[in-house]
Amino acid sequence: MTARPNELTAVEAARRIEAGDLTVEALVRACLERIEEREPEIAAFAHLDREQLLATAIAHDGAGPMRGVPVGVKDIVDTVDAPTTYGSPIYRDHWPGADAVCVNRIHAAGGIVLGKTVTTEFAARYPGPTRNPHDVRHTPGGSSSGSAAAVADCMAPLGIGTQTAGSVIRPASFCGVYGYKATFGTLSFAGVRHYAESLDTLGCMARSVEDLAFFRDVLLGVEPAPLDPFPGRPRLGFCRTHHWDEADEATRTCIEDGARRLAAAGMAVEDVDLPAGFEEALEVYNRIQLFEGARCFAPDADAHPDLLSVDARALHERGMAVEAASYREALRRFQGWRAAVDEAFAGYDAVFTPSAAGEAPEGLRFTGDIAFNYLWTALHLPAVTIPAFKGPRGLPIGAQLVAPRYADDRLLAVAALVARRLV
Amino acid sequence: MTARPNELTAVEAARRIEAGDLTVEALVRACLERIEEREPEIAAFAHLDREQLLATAIAHDGAGPMRGVPVGVKDIVDTVDAPTTYGSPIYRDHWPGADAVCVNRIHAAGGIVLGKTVTTEFAARYPGPTRNPHDVRHTPGGSSSGSAAAVADCMAPLGIGTQTAGSVIRPASFCGVYGYKATFGTLSFAGVRHYAESLDTLGCMARSVEDLAFFRDVLLGVEPAPLDPFPGRPRLGFCRTHHWDEADEATRTCIEDGARRLAAAGMAVEDVDLPAGFEEALEVYNRIQLFEGARCFAPDADAHPDLLSVDARALHERGMAVEAASYREALRRFQGWRAAVDEAFAGYDAVFTPSAAGEAPEGLRFTGDIAFNYLWTALHLPAVTIPAFKGPRGLPIGAQLVAPRYADDRLLAVAALVARRLV
Repeated sequence: MTARPNELTAVEAARRIEAGDLTVEALVRACLERIEEREPEIAAFAHLDREQLLATAIAHDGAGPMRGVPVGVKDIVDTVDAPTTYGSPIYRDHWPGADAVCVNRIHAAGGIVLGKTVTTEFAARYPGPTRNPHDVRHTPGGSSSGSAAAVADCMAPLGIGTQTAGSVIRPASFCGVYGYKATFGTLSFAGVRHYAESLDTLGCMARSVEDLAFFRDVLLGVEPAPLDPFPGRPRLGFCRTHHWDEADEATRTCIEDGARRLAAAGMAVEDVDLPAGFEEALEVYNRIQLFEGARCFAPDADAHPDLLSVDARALHERGMAVEAASYREALRRFQGWRAAVDEAFAGYDAVFTPSAAGEAPEGLRFTGDIAFNYLWTALHLPAVTIPAFKGPRGLPIGAQLVAPRYADDRLLAVAALVARRLV
Repeated sequence: MTARPNELTAVEAARRIEAGDLTVEALVRACLERIEEREPEIAAFAHLDREQLLATAIAHDGAGPMRGVPVGVKDIVDTVDAPTTYGSPIYRDHWPGADAVCVNRIHAAGGIVLGKTVTTEFAARYPGPTRNPHDVRHTPGGSSSGSAAAVADCMAPLGIGTQTAGSVIRPASFCGVYGYKATFGTLSFAGVRHYAESLDTLGCMARSVEDLAFFRDVLLGVEPAPLDPFPGRPRLGFCRTHHWDEADEATRTCIEDGARRLAAAGMAVEDVDLPAGFEEALEVYNRIQLFEGARCFAPDADAHPDLLSVDARALHERGMAVEAASYREALRRFQGWRAAVDEAFAGYDAVFTPSAAGEAPEGLRFTGDIAFNYLWTALHLPAVTIPAFKGPRGLPIGAQLVAPRYADDRLLAVAALVARRLV
């Protein structure tokens, strides 16, 4: 049976367009058909202009490394030709004057912005309407809810997300897709709405590791090149973290089982602990997120207090109460922890750890726990999630790989090997 | 002789307003009179709406820690009630939809945005029309040209600047005012136009160290508190850097003389060298600035190539030619250098070093050399410049103090002591 064009990975779709076996129009039409069929139930998109999109697809010459492959763009990312609401009614009719750098990079590579995907309010906690394609009674996770759901449901092969705690890795895990968040600061955040500036990181979702690497190159603004395969057998540190008991039993079992299968496949898998002191990391993380978040939310909290959710108002209030010395001490703690973790993880090509505490929670109100995400984000480490397992409710459970700062290439190469064994 | 209100420091003006000895209206009117008199020659402002400003001043109740003290805001900072051109004709009529966080903080503290100050094009190299108030044939430095000139010329007590290489410290040095750039990432950059995201840092200019500390608290979004005086005698490392020979003779003499005077005043002053390897730092810095800068400039370079200066076009082209591996290696080098410098400078409360290579160059085309700035910026260290000396042409020469990351309070306290000795 032949896959429908919307079910292809981005790299495969681009290859077929290049070979003349697929047109940009046919690809975009297939995505649109899927969206028409499923969007009433999934609600992945905040904005999608069917007519404009078809005109763009028909006029596209199939050039550039992306060859017209369409992308879902999280709605905290500025776009000139589509409204950008940041998930807030305050910005219902907001049309930015310039594209974010990452959107410019998609256009420059010959990609097409399919539409803006649903985000939680200002990429924080108050959810949008998106539902999990695996079971619509469950959250898709957040804050990159729409991108994860759209990629999972074959509405788009690629999606842009951002992560301040776990907003790429967790929804990707909940929706059963691959997710990648870059080393902090290496993919441009210019033109993307900030939540907490020491933490905000760009990332993406896809349906293969190869696609993550391809899209990462596009977002970085370089010519996409195939990943160099990882040479030999990777050494993995299996890090349960001090949050291990907060993962549900199914997740713990899946991750333990995954580690055993990777070892059985010849990888060196060794238990590794976080250095001492990390028990306090969540509290320290929260200080940074609250202090910075309150300031990023303040212009809107001051101008439109009535249009902010209770969640955003609470964040603003709590963050304004954090003292400067306490904030500065928190930044200093993480500076020290980055060095400590560099040392603790030095012997491993990547660290193996849960992507989330369990399957997607039931209901749309709570987008999931940050326990297995905030730490890597604040340590500025790159991370990948692999849709490796299914839980007792039949929902996806991801396995996460984390690597040292700037070792994104190695991380992706290891992820490709791990995915081959676990997916 | 009584100082005119526009000649007061911000803290003194706020004190008088609180005491009922000065009104917000009188203060703003004095600034406006000075601007009316001098602006035709200095050209510090990109936008200033006299009527709107007077109405704001008259309506102001003198509340908040800033009590109506006016601020010049660099025109790469988004403001709702004034156009924001980023120093580019592309944005001639651009009115942002939201205030930058730092502008919101000024309003929240009861400050008044006096006007938008001239910046170079996108805070890079192509200069605006601003002239140096000390000698209008000379550059005020850049890219925070207008803020430095306005503060120096008593048009405004405070100015916001940003620094990617030396764009706060150098113009402050050239114009003879105090300048401060924060530890990277600690003052919100949200709503400010990015140039190179791993380097871009917010800062400010003022006419006293006390004012820098006061304004820093406002920008950080905390209640301003008087600086704790530095306890005892500071230990200073005198770091000439490997660029020492690029400073002109007058600057070298002034800085050597300054170090001697500080030692004579009882401070521990000791020569300190940069660790090995820093000879390559400028080339490594340039890779980061070019790679990131090209991507930040790309949306405009693609949409309006004809409206970009030759400088911006060259930066865009050169930056697109930097390879990803080379960029990533540069980031990794600076990550290592940050740890090396932490160690090398561990015994000092602050490091004493030139602010710039000399007096402001003649002409407006060249905004000055980055030799004594780029390194501290890329190391993410906080820095202060003090208007300590005059050069052979009668133009100001600054002395710079640099401290470890997050030691901004200590840096400002040391700067207050040093200023008392050298100014």
